Amino acid sequence: MRDRLLPMNRVRVLDEFWSARQRLMTDVTIPYMEKILRDEVPGAEKSHAVSNFRMAAGEEQGEFYGMVFQDSDVAKWLEAAAYSLYLKPDPALEKRVDDMVTLIARAQQEDGYLNTYFTVKEPENRWANLLECHELYCAGHLLEAAAAMAQVAGKKELLRVGIRLADHIVECFRDREGIPGHQEIEIGLERMYEVTGNREYLDMAIRFLDRRGQDPDWFMKNTPAHPGRHYGGYDIPPEDHEYNQTDVPVREQTRARGHAVRQLYMLTAMARAADETGDESMRAACVRMAEHIRRKQIYVTGAVGSTGRHEAFTVDMDLPADRCYGETCASVAMTFFASRMLTLDDDPEYGDLMELELYNAALAGMQLDGTRFFYVNPLSVDPEISGKVPGYEHVLPLRPEWYACACCPPNLARLISSLGGYLWSVNGQRVSAHLWIGSEADLPQAKIVTESGYPRQAYLRFTVREVRQKRFTLRARVPKRVGNIQTSMNGETVSLPVKNGYLELERDWEPGDTLEITGDMLITRLYPDPGVRDCAGKVAIARGPVIYCAEGVDNGDGLSALILPDDGAITELPYDPNLLNGVIPLEAEGFREKPGGELYGNDIPDKEKTNIRLIPYYAWANRGLNEMTVWLRRG
Amino acid sequence: MRDRLLPMNRVRVLDEFWSARQRLMTDVTIPYMEKILRDEVPGAEKSHAVSNFRMAAGEEQGEFYGMVFQDSDVAKWLEAAAYSLYLKPDPALEKRVDDMVTLIARAQQEDGYLNTYFTVKEPENRWANLLECHELYCAGHLLEAAAAMAQVAGKKELLRVGIRLADHIVECFRDREGIPGHQEIEIGLERMYEVTGNREYLDMAIRFLDRRGQDPDWFMKNTPAHPGRHYGGYDIPPEDHEYNQTDVPVREQTRARGHAVRQLYMLTAMARAADETGDESMRAACVRMAEHIRRKQIYVTGAVGSTGRHEAFTVDMDLPADRCYGETCASVAMTFFASRMLTLDDDPEYGDLMELELYNAALAGMQLDGTRFFYVNPLSVDPEISGKVPGYEHVLPLRPEWYACACCPPNLARLISSLGGYLWSVNGQRVSAHLWIGSEADLPQAKIVTESGYPRQAYLRFTVREVRQKRFTLRARVPKRVGNIQTSMNGETVSLPVKNGYLELERDWEPGDTLEITGDMLITRLYPDPGVRDCAGKVAIARGPVIYCAEGVDNGDGLSALILPDDGAITELPYDPNLLNGVIPLEAEGFREKPGGELYGNDIPDKEKTNIRLIPYYAWANRGLNEMTVWLRRG
Repeated sequence: MRDRLLPMNRVRVLDEFWSARQRLMTDVTIPYMEKILRDEVPGAEKSHAVSNFRMAAGEEQGEFYGMVFQDSDVAKWLEAAAYSLYLKPDPALEKRVDDMVTLIARAQQEDGYLNTYFTVKEPENRWANLLECHELYCAGHLLEAAAAMAQVAGKKELLRVGIRLADHIVECFRDREGIPGHQEIEIGLERMYEVTGNREYLDMAIRFLDRRGQDPDWFMKNTPAHPGRHYGGYDIPPEDHEYNQTDVPVREQTRARGHAVRQLYMLTAMARAADETGDESMRAACVRMAEHIRRKQIYVTGAVGSTGRHEAFTVDMDLPADRCYGETCASVAMTFFASRMLTLDDDPEYGDLMELELYNAALAGMQLDGTRFFYVNPLSVDPEISGKVPGYEHVLPLRPEWYACACCPPNLARLISSLGGYLWSVNGQRVSAHLWIGSEADLPQAKIVTESGYPRQAYLRFTVREVRQKRFTLRARVPKRVGNIQTSMNGETVSLPVKNGYLELERDWEPGDTLEITGDMLITRLYPDPGVRDCAGKVAIARGPVIYCAEGVDNGDGLSALILPDDGAITELPYDPNLLNGVIPLEAEGFREKPGGELYGNDIPDKEKTNIRLIPYYAWANRGLNEMTVWLRRG
Repeated sequence: MRDRLLPMNRVRVLDEFWSARQRLMTDVTIPYMEKILRDEVPGAEKSHAVSNFRMAAGEEQGEFYGMVFQDSDVAKWLEAAAYSLYLKPDPALEKRVDDMVTLIARAQQEDGYLNTYFTVKEPENRWANLLECHELYCAGHLLEAAAAMAQVAGKKELLRVGIRLADHIVECFRDREGIPGHQEIEIGLERMYEVTGNREYLDMAIRFLDRRGQDPDWFMKNTPAHPGRHYGGYDIPPEDHEYNQTDVPVREQTRARGHAVRQLYMLTAMARAADETGDESMRAACVRMAEHIRRKQIYVTGAVGSTGRHEAFTVDMDLPADRCYGETCASVAMTFFASRMLTLDDDPEYGDLMELELYNAALAGMQLDGTRFFYVNPLSVDPEISGKVPGYEHVLPLRPEWYACACCPPNLARLISSLGGYLWSVNGQRVSAHLWIGSEADLPQAKIVTESGYPRQAYLRFTVREVRQKRFTLRARVPKRVGNIQTSMNGETVSLPVKNGYLELERDWEPGDTLEITGDMLITRLYPDPGVRDCAGKVAIARGPVIYCAEGVDNGDGLSALILPDDGAITELPYDPNLLNGVIPLEAEGFREKPGGELYGNDIPDKEKTNIRLIPYYAWANRGLNEMTVWLRRG
């Protein structure tokens, strides 16, 4: 038997760190995104996404506008809005959601087809160009939204739309060839299976997965010419098997390559399919791929996908800090994938991987005020170069207002607002807490309230409330950068075994029982494998799960002159509630190398002692234009 | 009074290092290039350059083929052939040169116009698009060839063509607006002035220089639309004032920017104009720009122009080793510019700059066998990445056979074959030897034979032969990485003053007098300014003027694991005549960092002692596909 994640509608996040961010989602980000979709934010990139649905419904005249996948912005917003309604019931939002959903229902075609671009612009070309046209991608997001609305917000209207759409897709593709250009439909169908129990949806998802790579040239044979038309303008070559992840069947894949988000959405779907079916070759492929990413393709912040060209993975160990693509969506997708692997592979490292993404690369995608977002998440920025010099056009030193391609903001919103669904899993008589995030969880065995100081302080306290089943095992993952773990049961020190990375306690539980875990947040130096050319000889600093960085505003610009000796002290400064919404800065004993006057001098450069001030990476670029680096020179 | 360079037809290079390379030019490279131009090398990129002239002369039917500036390949070959005829008289080559020149004369139009692209394809558009069409660029090279043929090979046929062309250009542009897109005509006109004494040519060159930047928008206003046509396909934006170096008048320029070769050809012409006219503001601009390049924009190998996008300079200190553009032509042009500055600014550093280019970045452009060339000269190469990963498409790990845009090979050929013209200058009663290159120089005061062991050994021996004027001052530049200088006059140690970087000896000279200078080739560590982000914390090694590098073939791949401590010994190995055409390898005590198993580990990585083998950078990529790096990690 395998663990099953406890769905988010059984969990409420109550956490110093994350609750504030969920409130940011419900109160700022999700309403802001809705305004964007309705083109109500002056000065921001035009979205037109709602207007596109109105036109598809025959209720507005004009031209379709935006990316061919513009619909997905609405779907992802609806998914996030579903979570928002659960987190914070809001009749006004519910009314607006209802309006949006009925609009979508009116835009749906008689046969269940739903895509505004093709309905408005090219009705004759439905499902004709799966490589570039993102119809299945948009559908996948709509299905995710439909499932979330039903499961989390208890609203069934969108589910009816989703069922009609999913049935239409199954009908169209069950017996016809066809693989999605941008993977996502697989996740949507699996979510629909989860909510409706209709096995057709899961089977169709697995069919989409397994068809991929059977004929590497499928996209070459089945992508129609479209002179003068650009579907999103990405210029995706049908013959690029690596990019399209069609080089081999998915069960035979061994290395992450091509478009990072597509790869990771696919792996997320594969992991779930393996979980639902117990299919061993599917599971083995997921384990291999996760291993490959963790050993060869991930940045120290959790960012993945090192090149902006096609937003893709490149060759192993090619992880340039300053030209990093590291799309926010890819780190969100890594979280999805890691969460699925956590219950599939039972390896505690996936929990650390989730933390890596959540506290670093994914979270850095958002400004602290929740209104601006990074698409690209570099590990080093020089405002003189980033966004300006050729090769750095994609790297911005500050988060912009909005993007024409607005995939990342709603992706972060849906992740953060649904965070409760990533915390717990249940397996028979065993419940497992994977993340040190405070919550109230409605488990089959009991209600458990969890308090956590993470990532500020390393403590996690479980209090059992309504006990429904006296005897069960409570497991809590020990994060890899928490040390000196102490446990106490009802205030008395106990020694608990750590099995496979989890503290375990099996007992008869009484209401009011408390299990407290405390530890030290370790300040850790992270040394790259010397094969990572870009950062070999450098060092990064973490405190617990949080990767730190140096910014020019604290250290003066010219960060490449800073040196962090291997033996220098790194001091934790007091928690500062007024700095960057509350952080613990670090101060490291280091040096600043002094320019010798010549561009290349013969003398060992002088250096002077300096204290290097570090802040959490997720909070960078919140204090105006300045340099930033995660990696510091050793020496 | 200023120094004047002694023209190459008064000098014969007799030098262990360079004579062999000049023979490579006369015996291999120049004949090979001619075959390329005549499309006689099977498998190489088609040139069609000679055919284009035949078509322009009405003697062949067909389509123009190649770059819009394809003519310049012929002109640069002719210039190199002129030098070749001087270095090694060859009646067969002379015959072929004559054939080529008469073909060119037949392709020249009645009014003196000469450009095969426009004669064949667009006669109605002559001189209509100066930004993109390279007519003035091709003309400049033709004029350089014409001047060389007359001055060095004593052949006047091409000069007559050149005079007609130059007169035509003066007539067209004297009273008409117009600035060249790609600077070069200015150099050509100055060379014609040097050979003919016709001041109109110099004045026209200065006019082209001074018109530039008067109206930054000139190219915007004067570049015709040409839908469907691509003149070289470079897509140069007329509004890019920096790229086009039209942002300010040339006398007001303060920083190198835009296309590197264009910038440096312009500076070469400016320096000569300042020299010929004594114009102070022109001279000051050259000094400022040279200073800017040396302080902020040059690689440790002498490469310049850090981005392949438009082959351009970028922002200060942005000098990535692995994505370096460093066009061979730009280093050739740096040599031209530095040589001009040497006599204009009387600063011995320009001599070191010439050495930097000659022994490193420029020379690396050529395979040791003289038949293959780099266009791009990176300081770090990983064959897994270079030429493959996005952003590295331009960086090749091996020199290819030929290029569609073949500017670099003939540029190197003309530089190396005319090297004699860079050695000596004369200023009244003073003669100066700027480079430690063996030669026989026919100076106004005497014939002087110079023997040199450079760069293998630091000695330079002058023997005076036919004395025409007893009393004169002999100056010899002391290279900056030669130490422990000893001098002896006719075998007896003398102590000579070093003035402004030059050893000086004024005396009455007798035939047979010898002045010998010896010193030590210093092995030097070069530490970058910490503001050069890409190599801060790293070190490069030089022996005398020669920059060294590590290759995978000597050290195993994975060069980013190598560490060169600041205090480790670096040993000179014996000269190996069989290695890379004869080099002195270096062996440095260092370490190899060992992978810890994790991509980012918590422990200080282990390292093991290793000897790092280094070879001269100019000789890299001559032993098959492997990694290379100039920069090594300190630590």
